[in-house]
Amino acid sequence: MRNFTMLCDFYELTMAGGYFRTGMADKICYFDLFFRRIPDGGGYAIAAGLEQVVDYIRNLHFDEADIDYLRGKGCFDEAFLCYLRGFRFTGDIWAVPEGTVVFPGEPLLTVRARAIEAQFIETYLLLAINHQSLIATKASRIVRAAKGRAISEFGARRAQGADAAILGARAAYIGGCTATATTLTDALYGVPATGTMAHSWIQLFDDEYEAFCAYCRCYPHNATLLVDTYNVLESGIPNAIRAFRDVLLPQGITQCAVRLDSGDLAYLSRRARKMLDDAGLNECRIIASNALDEYRIADILNQGACIDAFGVGERLITASSEPVFGGVYKLCAVEDDDGNILPRIKISENTAKITTPHFKQVYRLYNGTDGHAEADLICLHDELVDDSLPLTLFDPDYTWKRRTMVNFTPRRLLIPIFRSGELVYDLPTLEEIRAYCAKEQGSLWDEVLRPDNPHKYYVDLSERLWTLKQELLKSHAIGGELELAHNGTM
Amino acid sequence: MRNFTMLCDFYELTMAGGYFRTGMADKICYFDLFFRRIPDGGGYAIAAGLEQVVDYIRNLHFDEADIDYLRGKGCFDEAFLCYLRGFRFTGDIWAVPEGTVVFPGEPLLTVRARAIEAQFIETYLLLAINHQSLIATKASRIVRAAKGRAISEFGARRAQGADAAILGARAAYIGGCTATATTLTDALYGVPATGTMAHSWIQLFDDEYEAFCAYCRCYPHNATLLVDTYNVLESGIPNAIRAFRDVLLPQGITQCAVRLDSGDLAYLSRRARKMLDDAGLNECRIIASNALDEYRIADILNQGACIDAFGVGERLITASSEPVFGGVYKLCAVEDDDGNILPRIKISENTAKITTPHFKQVYRLYNGTDGHAEADLICLHDELVDDSLPLTLFDPDYTWKRRTMVNFTPRRLLIPIFRSGELVYDLPTLEEIRAYCAKEQGSLWDEVLRPDNPHKYYVDLSERLWTLKQELLKSHAIGGELELAHNGTM
Repeated sequence: MRNFTMLCDFYELTMAGGYFRTGMADKICYFDLFFRRIPDGGGYAIAAGLEQVVDYIRNLHFDEADIDYLRGKGCFDEAFLCYLRGFRFTGDIWAVPEGTVVFPGEPLLTVRARAIEAQFIETYLLLAINHQSLIATKASRIVRAAKGRAISEFGARRAQGADAAILGARAAYIGGCTATATTLTDALYGVPATGTMAHSWIQLFDDEYEAFCAYCRCYPHNATLLVDTYNVLESGIPNAIRAFRDVLLPQGITQCAVRLDSGDLAYLSRRARKMLDDAGLNECRIIASNALDEYRIADILNQGACIDAFGVGERLITASSEPVFGGVYKLCAVEDDDGNILPRIKISENTAKITTPHFKQVYRLYNGTDGHAEADLICLHDELVDDSLPLTLFDPDYTWKRRTMVNFTPRRLLIPIFRSGELVYDLPTLEEIRAYCAKEQGSLWDEVLRPDNPHKYYVDLSERLWTLKQELLKSHAIGGELELAHNGTM
Repeated sequence: MRNFTMLCDFYELTMAGGYFRTGMADKICYFDLFFRRIPDGGGYAIAAGLEQVVDYIRNLHFDEADIDYLRGKGCFDEAFLCYLRGFRFTGDIWAVPEGTVVFPGEPLLTVRARAIEAQFIETYLLLAINHQSLIATKASRIVRAAKGRAISEFGARRAQGADAAILGARAAYIGGCTATATTLTDALYGVPATGTMAHSWIQLFDDEYEAFCAYCRCYPHNATLLVDTYNVLESGIPNAIRAFRDVLLPQGITQCAVRLDSGDLAYLSRRARKMLDDAGLNECRIIASNALDEYRIADILNQGACIDAFGVGERLITASSEPVFGGVYKLCAVEDDDGNILPRIKISENTAKITTPHFKQVYRLYNGTDGHAEADLICLHDELVDDSLPLTLFDPDYTWKRRTMVNFTPRRLLIPIFRSGELVYDLPTLEEIRAYCAKEQGSLWDEVLRPDNPHKYYVDLSERLWTLKQELLKSHAIGGELELAHNGTM
């Protein structure tokens, strides 16, 4: 297992050194990891990356070479370097399981730990969860656009580094893709790797028909022929039909496929379908690729494309239309010496950037009639949601917008992952995560799942939490009303 | 060193198995790695990632666990799996050095090797070079926008996985950044890691002034105080001034800094500068961060921002405005049994996608007067450019556009990296690469360096290569004129 301890922003170390020297190292802190905006204007996001966080936390330690490097920076004293030798994570972590549908403003993960530990893990936690949540969310959008057709992830060559390829394919599978081209992700995580040929296969043979026959002889049960090296309709499809007839049909094999990788996919796929059907190859599938994403897939399907499956590359593996998942990691509380939890708030002129204070839990509320998720309610950690009583929800900004729920089932989203540094969570298999993610999406109303202009899913605060937040805002405003109004503006 | 052998598209393996079974495994092939379009509409790109390619090639081998995995896929026979056990790269690679400014259509790297070897390495070569070239190019744009002010790379938390953070910081340094926040990139590659504090540092103390004083006492020679936790002008700057005066000045330290991380950076920096100057802190630098990129930096500098250095995060580490560098890897020639090189071309209805055939060399032509790079000339591998004679260049598409150069110096861009599988290249240090990259940019005319609507740098073909390409196009067109005209269209 790789040790990512040193994959931290340098300021985690300067702050750690500072907490050590100022006697604050053991102060218990609470941090929330949450995001503020769903990429691509979507209605939901998918949390992913927790398994990598678990690996990271369990392996967290400084090697002697790391200590030597830090000594060489010249700004840390020996007492601190000695402390780092024994540094481990000894705190608590709660998180939503991978594959959970999540919404802005709610904690995806909460850390309770000594100041140095809680602060230090920030960079890697954000990196792991931001990356895989970005790709799982994008994959989900693309899979939905394909309306039941399989999506294979193809993007390793355009990924932003090796982990972007390897773990991006993992996240894409969680989001609903059925396969990947990245062999290593299959070997490591069991995402089925598939692939057949590039144009160079065709070019290395004297002609296209010969190249197709050779491939069909090598892989008769996995013959997907790339038909656009020379000319799809005049050459590729006719040669593929001949090769299938000459090599596969005599063996009784009728399952085969062609792949279109350029040109007008709607037009070419309709023409190819007719040619294949006229040749009696009704079971031959048509696979399409070439700079696809959810928008292009929806477009060509709307135009009647005859495509059975898609390969999606750079626009999925980089989430190119919006390549950043903006998760942040913010202090929300500290404990005093008696173990009392003292809430902390970060004020901002931009109201969307004001944090929600205190140690919290998130409940998802499902309606009792058809099981749809109706709203999430962020509560104080020790609040219980009583489903035997009507529950009134209200918009935290426009508090006159109210709704009373009866006949609902609450579910706690944040579950214990680490307690006192020990893993207390049974990591699900990737297949379980993927199935859970599909079920999660199925619990949302279609209006929330809509790719553009979706209905905004309700994420509300409990009465107690809302009141606490207002009080903290007011107490800061007393000393700084003018500051708050004008911070950062003219 | 990590073994990335299995980080390949699965089709590299099915093709390899096919070449093995059809007796084509040892056919000598030539592949070019090149790109077609400069991201963000820029005038130049920067090649990077070669060092990682070298590591990959030298470490290329299948472990027994890999062989077991491949056997489990059920589509490879034992003879091929046995062959893979001894699989190594035994061919030749030429490439442009890291940090070279490069242009569309010219090979950044050329491989000559047996069919299986040359094909197999495609995925990782593209991944490594696409990723780091993307980030180096983006960094160069951002650094130029800052007009001499230092740019620190800050983006690990929003990077697309661990390697995107680690190697992205390396590429950003090649492109001209002066530092990174990513500690591991310093430990591994020597990119200076810097950092001071997050908002949580401030929030953990009882008040901002106390937090600032504590930090100044811990790190008096590296005191960059984050001043926007509560209110920049009413609280952050006044408290920073007090802390500097109370802690640093008595020690005779006048070099310090403040960081603005939100709000209107142009306005706040001008006001902060005046407050700091009025307090006699003329040596206090102002550092700014918050969703910056080349466009925003240019804007706020145009508005008179008083900023000495920038921290740039997600928009650099993901190159978010265009997060894909579209390098491709295409067969350009094969050898017959007598060692004759036979050119190969890939035709496309989209003329920009037609490849340039044959084994090639790229010459950069510098004018003899002031040393500016004037044009690149792609030649056949054995052509010599004679700088004692006038050289007539012509546009490969609009051949009437001609220009005759006299008094010029040619430089070969593609240099040998591997010969018969052996590394024959002395890898430069990262500092050397960075200095070379700065010199490379300095050789371009300002009109080519312009971020928007730059002058198009000339990349021409030699007369011999142009003629060869035309002949191949015509020979394909004889059998398929109609196909070529209509391929992929209605």
